[in-house]
Amino acid sequence: MKQMDRLPGFRDFFPDPVPHPDLGRMEERSHIFNTWRQVTRRYGFKEYDGPPLETLDLYKAKSGDEIVHQLYHFTDKGKRDVAMRPEMTPTLARMIAAHQRGYKKPMKWFSIPQLFRYERQQKGRLREHFQLNADIIGESDPSADAELIALLIDVLRALGMTHEDFVIRLSSRDAWQAFFQERCQDESKAYEFYQAVDKLERETPEASTEKLAKIGISYQEVMEFIQAAEPTEDLQRILDQMKARGLEEYIKIDYGVIRGLAYYTGVVFEAFDRKGEFRAIAGGGRYDHLVKLISGGKVDLPSLGFGMGDVVLADMLRDKGLFPKAAAAVDVYFQISDENLRKESITLVQRLRDQGVAVEWPLVQTGGKKQFKAALELGAGYTANLMEDGKVELKNLNTRETEELSPEALMARFEA
Amino acid sequence: MKQMDRLPGFRDFFPDPVPHPDLGRMEERSHIFNTWRQVTRRYGFKEYDGPPLETLDLYKAKSGDEIVHQLYHFTDKGKRDVAMRPEMTPTLARMIAAHQRGYKKPMKWFSIPQLFRYERQQKGRLREHFQLNADIIGESDPSADAELIALLIDVLRALGMTHEDFVIRLSSRDAWQAFFQERCQDESKAYEFYQAVDKLERETPEASTEKLAKIGISYQEVMEFIQAAEPTEDLQRILDQMKARGLEEYIKIDYGVIRGLAYYTGVVFEAFDRKGEFRAIAGGGRYDHLVKLISGGKVDLPSLGFGMGDVVLADMLRDKGLFPKAAAAVDVYFQISDENLRKESITLVQRLRDQGVAVEWPLVQTGGKKQFKAALELGAGYTANLMEDGKVELKNLNTRETEELSPEALMARFEA
Repeated sequence: MKQMDRLPGFRDFFPDPVPHPDLGRMEERSHIFNTWRQVTRRYGFKEYDGPPLETLDLYKAKSGDEIVHQLYHFTDKGKRDVAMRPEMTPTLARMIAAHQRGYKKPMKWFSIPQLFRYERQQKGRLREHFQLNADIIGESDPSADAELIALLIDVLRALGMTHEDFVIRLSSRDAWQAFFQERCQDESKAYEFYQAVDKLERETPEASTEKLAKIGISYQEVMEFIQAAEPTEDLQRILDQMKARGLEEYIKIDYGVIRGLAYYTGVVFEAFDRKGEFRAIAGGGRYDHLVKLISGGKVDLPSLGFGMGDVVLADMLRDKGLFPKAAAAVDVYFQISDENLRKESITLVQRLRDQGVAVEWPLVQTGGKKQFKAALELGAGYTANLMEDGKVELKNLNTRETEELSPEALMARFEA
Repeated sequence: MKQMDRLPGFRDFFPDPVPHPDLGRMEERSHIFNTWRQVTRRYGFKEYDGPPLETLDLYKAKSGDEIVHQLYHFTDKGKRDVAMRPEMTPTLARMIAAHQRGYKKPMKWFSIPQLFRYERQQKGRLREHFQLNADIIGESDPSADAELIALLIDVLRALGMTHEDFVIRLSSRDAWQAFFQERCQDESKAYEFYQAVDKLERETPEASTEKLAKIGISYQEVMEFIQAAEPTEDLQRILDQMKARGLEEYIKIDYGVIRGLAYYTGVVFEAFDRKGEFRAIAGGGRYDHLVKLISGGKVDLPSLGFGMGDVVLADMLRDKGLFPKAAAAVDVYFQISDENLRKESITLVQRLRDQGVAVEWPLVQTGGKKQFKAALELGAGYTANLMEDGKVELKNLNTRETEELSPEALMARFEA
């Protein structure tokens, strides 16, 4: 039988020390997830999760064609059309629609789902990725938008990035809608217009000019509107709040951003690296009508959120050398130099672990040098060694100082 | 449009306070995951993960029919036969086979995957669950089995359970194989025999007698073998090590356990609640030939592991009242009683959060009483309130003591 491999576009995550730089590194993922959880907590966000498999209808309901044709979908053994989740917002809207009555508003929720899309592979795009999703539900005031954007900034700052590394480009569907309605009376063309604006930076001026002309709007006017970058009242309030927070250097009005998805309604934003070498780090905005849509009209709550994927983010952190060195996984390496003392040594290993100490030890008879080398490779803080007289030799591997302790004194030393 | 619902057998996880007792509670899940990570760390295990979607072949290769017909499988847009992972061991074996050379042996790895099976729904069985998977790869000595079983026991102890709550039933495929080979020369019937033994406790004696008779083995002999519970040499070494660890009360020899899966080779075990009200909490054993199978014969490493699901475990913890009360998510509720001081208040909110303090505050103008009530409901430790003279009134919500501080003194108070 041939050797099995993983599916293309999917990652394995290996423990340190990762034997090959192209392999996924679990320590990096944990560092990102831990930071996401720490900073969302500071902002009073609470964690939720939903299933990675949902009904296909949930995605058909809201996303427009740009997502549906990229879905991993199939018919299950119960004849249900199902799809692996490509984004978290529909699941969130479904959960909110069903149970929002039990929660005080505004609700500040976050999640770290794994998401799946069948896409052509390219840099920073796989077929799965993890995403921090943070949402505020039940508050229409721009103060909520500012709170959410401040969270986004602080997550990136907590990972070691500064305003020299990234910027939030802030825009408004409202502003673009007003622009559109002044120039085109056919509301059914609005989505086509947003799509054209969304692709401005990725297409040639000629292609964009042609697309816009079909809607009866001039490329020139669009570019002038982006240049002017005149903030709406909502955007101005957000800018003022960012200033009060001392975060004004991290944000700028930029109507070049509009967000592709159909369901955004008001303020939208994306985080980009300043050098423009990477894809967007994060993006989000208001989706005030989505909960109503998903709930079949039963629940109507203004909402906004952002998603920050782990792939582009990890590429940037690696590029900037911002991942911390591997943390030592082991506190004490308990050597066994005298096999007659194996049983008594195991007893002490257990007692140390009972106190919460991370202990490694030789499962089978091994030479003393090999054990010491293992302790160093594991980055252990100490070696311990039970001796015939019942004392334990404790060696600090940083200072190389050695002392002899009774088992009781050893336990006291490592008390939590 | 009608309201959307989640798929049957899948769970949503809601933040506290969960509005309905039947809903999944994220806090419970986090408590279990955190404990899993804490205790595995004590034992020197390192975390890994793999994709939730794998090639169908990976599962066909190893699991026997008992799993394959329960898979969520389909053909992807690239014409690949794929399946959502029903268990973690094949993924682990695949990763090990590809990259074990870069790691010191034994490798002690753990993961917390979500797993998927299309099964008839019943108590403690959904169509998805999370599972702690802990494995030791590259050590054939029973010392590794003892280490792994001790980890299993300590995970359950760390969750608040004692030897009065659960027991590890320890058995051996080797012992059963010797039993089988003394009575039946046809090795092709071995798997059928293991299956019959595995189902002894769930089927009538008559049904079991009939099944065993077909293989030419008497029900009476099987029951007597189980009764005698004579430990093999390997099992005795495990028992001795558990005694050295002071964990002997948590374990007993019980040949009634044999594990259904085809790939186990030596020691096998399951954790059960003492009262026998729940399904198995965890189960595992040696699978010394699996890595060889998955690697196409290239890599041969003795291995063993266990899986502990979150569903039965959470049912037990709930039943015994062992889940902790909700932890306060908020350290400080920053009130805004004077709207003229909103901007200055936001600045202080930001500065506190920059120090790692979890702060909540009113996004829009709200009455003072409502704010104070919100602080209490969030379980905040303090309220803070910026006053016109620039001082901050800080109230300890436990002692109800109040003091006035300068902003600088406030920051110093909440320094990490």
